[in-house]
Amino acid sequence: MVVRQRIAIDMDEVTADALSRHLELYNREFNMTLTVEHLQGKKITEAVIPDHRERVEAYPREVGFFKNLPVMPHSQEVIQALMQRYDVYITTAAMEYPTSFTDKFEWLRDHFPFIPWTNIVFCGDKSIIAADYLLDDTVRHFKQFRGEGIIFTAPHNINEQGYRRVHNWLEVRELFLA
Amino acid sequence: MVVRQRIAIDMDEVTADALSRHLELYNREFNMTLTVEHLQGKKITEAVIPDHRERVEAYPREVGFFKNLPVMPHSQEVIQALMQRYDVYITTAAMEYPTSFTDKFEWLRDHFPFIPWTNIVFCGDKSIIAADYLLDDTVRHFKQFRGEGIIFTAPHNINEQGYRRVHNWLEVRELFLA
Repeated sequence: MVVRQRIAIDMDEVTADALSRHLELYNREFNMTLTVEHLQGKKITEAVIPDHRERVEAYPREVGFFKNLPVMPHSQEVIQALMQRYDVYITTAAMEYPTSFTDKFEWLRDHFPFIPWTNIVFCGDKSIIAADYLLDDTVRHFKQFRGEGIIFTAPHNINEQGYRRVHNWLEVRELFLA
Repeated sequence: MVVRQRIAIDMDEVTADALSRHLELYNREFNMTLTVEHLQGKKITEAVIPDHRERVEAYPREVGFFKNLPVMPHSQEVIQALMQRYDVYITTAAMEYPTSFTDKFEWLRDHFPFIPWTNIVFCGDKSIIAADYLLDDTVRHFKQFRGEGIIFTAPHNINEQGYRRVHNWLEVRELFLA
């Protein structure tokens, strides 16, 4: 019997583009023109004017923030291809934003209907995930993870070292299916 | 450095008494007098009149089903004691009932405020959980679990064999803290 390896995949900044929503809300509220180019090596909360930080941190706690987020390019087709060879789970730290539960679940049902509900996980600390690989933009989750953490490039993590890195979903396909 | 062992704990029929809600709704709607005594070795959906089954299966999908569920006796004090010696996670198959997310999260915050959000997991298939022990009433979750599954006795599981069993929270304390 061949045991399939298991890949755990994050949502925000990996399958879902939450950063563009974050920028859009910030620029609209404060009449700013912050772009991804200003965020190299920084989270949005570190890039904004300190007086705006508290407000910007609150956006993801608002109902609707996670609704209709753009899908990361090629993530759907590559995940479908991965599922032919691997057990794929979506593992998102949703517990940080309890108002996101329904939006996140519906977003997955709308955009990744081929992922069964059995393979969706809302958690906090991802060291609880039993998988061979964790594809994530947040390296903090790799520290106590028992498998291999793989960085999915996002503006805030470009300077992180010590893990294999993919820059986009075409590179994910190359890494796991070449 | 001492590595703490990790215990994953289910909600329904382990920390939360969902069965009493289920019986209450069924008896009220169909004017029946079904009790726990009728459920030995059976799930409620297997014990009711076949014509009622579909309706009874639908109860947990209704908003509010998981609200204000009774807390299982001694679960709060024993979990607090376990947390002194173990890393404790709450792992519930909430994905089966997406309407339950908010009720379950709020219930935990109300009755187990000492469990941080980082240690709460909503999942489907529990083989994704990385823990040393899984305390659960549903043995199906033990099949591919990489740690040890421990049965928490519920009416439907009294005939299950092949795993260590605890009948109540005082026995959980005895097992892990004696």
